Amino acid sequence: MTNLVRLQQALGHEFSDPQLLVLALTHRSAGRSNNERLEFLGDSIVNHIIAEALFEQFPASREGDMSRMRSALVRGATLAEIARELQLGDYLLLGPGERRSGGHRRASILADALEAVAGAILLDNGFERCRSCVRRWFGPRLEQLTTRAAAKDAKTQLQEHQQGRGNPLPDYELVSVQGEDHNQQFRVLCRITRPALVAEGAGSSRRKAEQAAARTALQRLADHGG
Amino acid sequence: MTNLVRLQQALGHEFSDPQLLVLALTHRSAGRSNNERLEFLGDSIVNHIIAEALFEQFPASREGDMSRMRSALVRGATLAEIARELQLGDYLLLGPGERRSGGHRRASILADALEAVAGAILLDNGFERCRSCVRRWFGPRLEQLTTRAAAKDAKTQLQEHQQGRGNPLPDYELVSVQGEDHNQQFRVLCRITRPALVAEGAGSSRRKAEQAAARTALQRLADHGG
Repeated sequence: MTNLVRLQQALGHEFSDPQLLVLALTHRSAGRSNNERLEFLGDSIVNHIIAEALFEQFPASREGDMSRMRSALVRGATLAEIARELQLGDYLLLGPGERRSGGHRRASILADALEAVAGAILLDNGFERCRSCVRRWFGPRLEQLTTRAAAKDAKTQLQEHQQGRGNPLPDYELVSVQGEDHNQQFRVLCRITRPALVAEGAGSSRRKAEQAAARTALQRLADHGG
Repeated sequence: MTNLVRLQQALGHEFSDPQLLVLALTHRSAGRSNNERLEFLGDSIVNHIIAEALFEQFPASREGDMSRMRSALVRGATLAEIARELQLGDYLLLGPGERRSGGHRRASILADALEAVAGAILLDNGFERCRSCVRRWFGPRLEQLTTRAAAKDAKTQLQEHQQGRGNPLPDYELVSVQGEDHNQQFRVLCRITRPALVAEGAGSSRRKAEQAAARTALQRLADHGG
């Protein structure tokens, strides 16, 4: 039980009732009293906490995009990765057969145990604490999503945005080129007919100017509830 | 907007920001700014609230049974029934095409809107309020589950309990019959080998005595974390 101190630090929650944590770590191979019920509870709360985090983090994303991101985050393989980062395997209680066959490294057992731990935290301390722990566990992966979304170029994003809503695609129009050969400034208009919107962009190449115009258009769409 | 007073009474929540409720009632056919994102959020919170309610209500049920009950409760057809009970259809904002073709009575539109309303309550007032509303909406259906579980006879329940855990089935043994022909008292033992347990039951027929013994056995199993 001493070891559980280190695990609780990694999880971000010190249990009022450490027996709940022990139950969450108990695989069904270890006994009749095991983590299956906690896993049921934990699965649903992890799902919701991730849905809520994505809802906040991507105010302009559509339901379908958020669903896809959530599926990738809460699937077994990802949960098992996070469980490994927290070294959950070291604390699992397994039956002799599972222990011999390396059950403490098995992805499905790790993923289920992580969900059960979330359920145990929910019972031990309520929704707020559970949310803060789960968001911390998934933190780097949630941040990566933002980086990846930002890395997708603005023209592609704008095109997908319009296609996703069955709206016409944007037109780009070069309106001026100024300056000398090696220091030119391009100005481009990005025009959408539904919703009606014209956004301007400038840059040192036509491509950069178009990207800038698309970025402005996306921002305006997001500001209007996209 | 006046009408929304009546709807909010039915829902059990008066919105600080009524625009959230309007958004939740706005089908995608009615405009770019619609309830799809709120539906994503609401779907996950309704799922969790029902999971939590079942977890509390059925302390002896296994994960698989709770999953089945939850699926039945949160499927589209059930959500649409609840939406109809709340008369949600009267308040939906639909595009002209959907309106003409009876979209306000369509199950999928009603179900999605109910989820979106749950998401809107979550944003407007937080988890606790959302939970109390959703539990109220599902209240009669949650109660029916308990009644149905209780109505299932004890011998069947005990058999399913053992099968679900891969344990041997119980044996029933008639140990005595006392009294006169029309006032007999039967005594029966219910015997389980794993977990080792013997329970006794009595009744005016052999069948009743067996049911009584099975009920006692189930109770003891539940007391020991079943």
